Amino acid sequence: MGSPLVECVPNISEGRNREVVDAIVSAVSAERCRLIDLSLDPDHNRAVITLVGEPDALADSLLELVARAVERIDLRTHQGAHPRMGAVDVIPFIPVRGVSMADCVALSRRVGETIAARFGIPVYLYEESASTEERRSLAAIREGQFERFPDKIKDPRWRPDFGEPVVHPTAGVTAVGAREFLIAFNVNLATCDLGIAKRIASAVRFSSGGLRYVKALGFDLPERGIVQVSMNLTSFRKTPILRVFDLVRQEAARHGVLVHSSEIVGLVPREALYSTAAYALQLEGFSPRSVLEERIEEAFGEGR
Amino acid sequence: MGSPLVECVPNISEGRNREVVDAIVSAVSAERCRLIDLSLDPDHNRAVITLVGEPDALADSLLELVARAVERIDLRTHQGAHPRMGAVDVIPFIPVRGVSMADCVALSRRVGETIAARFGIPVYLYEESASTEERRSLAAIREGQFERFPDKIKDPRWRPDFGEPVVHPTAGVTAVGAREFLIAFNVNLATCDLGIAKRIASAVRFSSGGLRYVKALGFDLPERGIVQVSMNLTSFRKTPILRVFDLVRQEAARHGVLVHSSEIVGLVPREALYSTAAYALQLEGFSPRSVLEERIEEAFGEGR
Repeated sequence: MGSPLVECVPNISEGRNREVVDAIVSAVSAERCRLIDLSLDPDHNRAVITLVGEPDALADSLLELVARAVERIDLRTHQGAHPRMGAVDVIPFIPVRGVSMADCVALSRRVGETIAARFGIPVYLYEESASTEERRSLAAIREGQFERFPDKIKDPRWRPDFGEPVVHPTAGVTAVGAREFLIAFNVNLATCDLGIAKRIASAVRFSSGGLRYVKALGFDLPERGIVQVSMNLTSFRKTPILRVFDLVRQEAARHGVLVHSSEIVGLVPREALYSTAAYALQLEGFSPRSVLEERIEEAFGEGR
Repeated sequence: MGSPLVECVPNISEGRNREVVDAIVSAVSAERCRLIDLSLDPDHNRAVITLVGEPDALADSLLELVARAVERIDLRTHQGAHPRMGAVDVIPFIPVRGVSMADCVALSRRVGETIAARFGIPVYLYEESASTEERRSLAAIREGQFERFPDKIKDPRWRPDFGEPVVHPTAGVTAVGAREFLIAFNVNLATCDLGIAKRIASAVRFSSGGLRYVKALGFDLPERGIVQVSMNLTSFRKTPILRVFDLVRQEAARHGVLVHSSEIVGLVPREALYSTAAYALQLEGFSPRSVLEERIEEAFGEGR
């Protein structure tokens, strides 16, 4: 298996000033922790940073990254389309290899406690790390955003998991947690009727009666003359991509519409693609050991 | 990319005596060349050996393997269901990474020339390495088998590419060549009617009007009460697995039969599974850089 690896995807409240973001991510320079993806969204005024590393190296890089973000981002003047409550808004840890979800929960607690102690930022634990059922939901924690948090934090129900119930004046509050890998998967439909995309989104998402680990919205893509069902798949092992795709296709057919194409935004775990292939081909007895390159890596001890 | 790697799958005419096969494959002990798969077939009295290594290390291991096979296998007493003409019957080289088909052709020529010179075994170049169109076909070269080769080799049309036109008394002749990775793919049908499997095989295989890079036969699996379309896919990039699967399914439906399951025998390249997933999901803009683990390997320089 080689060294244990964890992914961490801090979202910071700066998506317009490239220099500021570069100064913040330059915190990641360890041998055993790497920046593997970085995406700035000017409309959201938010950057999504993807790090992978060994747990200790990752925690060290992340804490340095938080220090730099707290120095450079002032939420009192921040504006953007995406809801936010902190300079470092949310920090999810995701198991990649050789680590369990419990390991990631422990890591998130350790990092959360350090953030509160070192920077005076109140920290909320969410998703798998949550201390109450209500706090599993990031949206519930973030409700009211930075501007209304000074009141919310005084409510005993919203006492932070770490730190005093006092919002940091410029950096707000931060959510830290552990979760499964999330696949951002969009299906484009060969129609310009937004109502159809919205009805399909409603049919397939958990919140309105669909599949357990699917979040979905319908969007218009006017420059392409088509519409899109934009989804987050929050547990690809339990709700496989191809099952979601087939359900979207079936619902589209009910409206006399074909699927135009699909896209994965960001990254997808290899296992999800292997499973999709095995599912599409009705493969029996498939395991990663059937894959030439896996067998080569095993034989040569590469990447393990 | 890391070190260049070639796969080599020598087929030897011994599939019953495990000790003999083990003694032959123990030739493979180099640091830069590994045995990744070994399968003995007693009915065929034949073993299929899968090696992967850097070209020079692979050639060295292979020549040592041939030396041991020539010492231990006597074709004068060999019997088995599979056609054969040599103690080491056939030696294909397959590009894996960082090498081209032309590199594998050159490697096959070098190894073939050495086998003829060192062991006195006549060598025929086949598939991508063939010196004439007729010799691309291994079946055409092997026709007549060991027993009739003393006559065949005197025909100027069948003068060997390397070595004198004299069959080695115990080791026969050997074919050496370069080819694409071959995927052995079987589709099981939810029927016990062998005629249907045979008709579908006939519909999908190249030789009787089907897909260009598909070889297919229908088989009975009486112990499971089903039948099977057993295929070799000789160019998975040009004739993708899922297209073959969908065609078999469509032909089966014409007979009122469903696909029960499918199986990959041996190994499948990762790229073929990625393509299958992208094809099934109608993914646009997919590249291996969308895969989490590929990005991690890139960042950490693992296996490259």
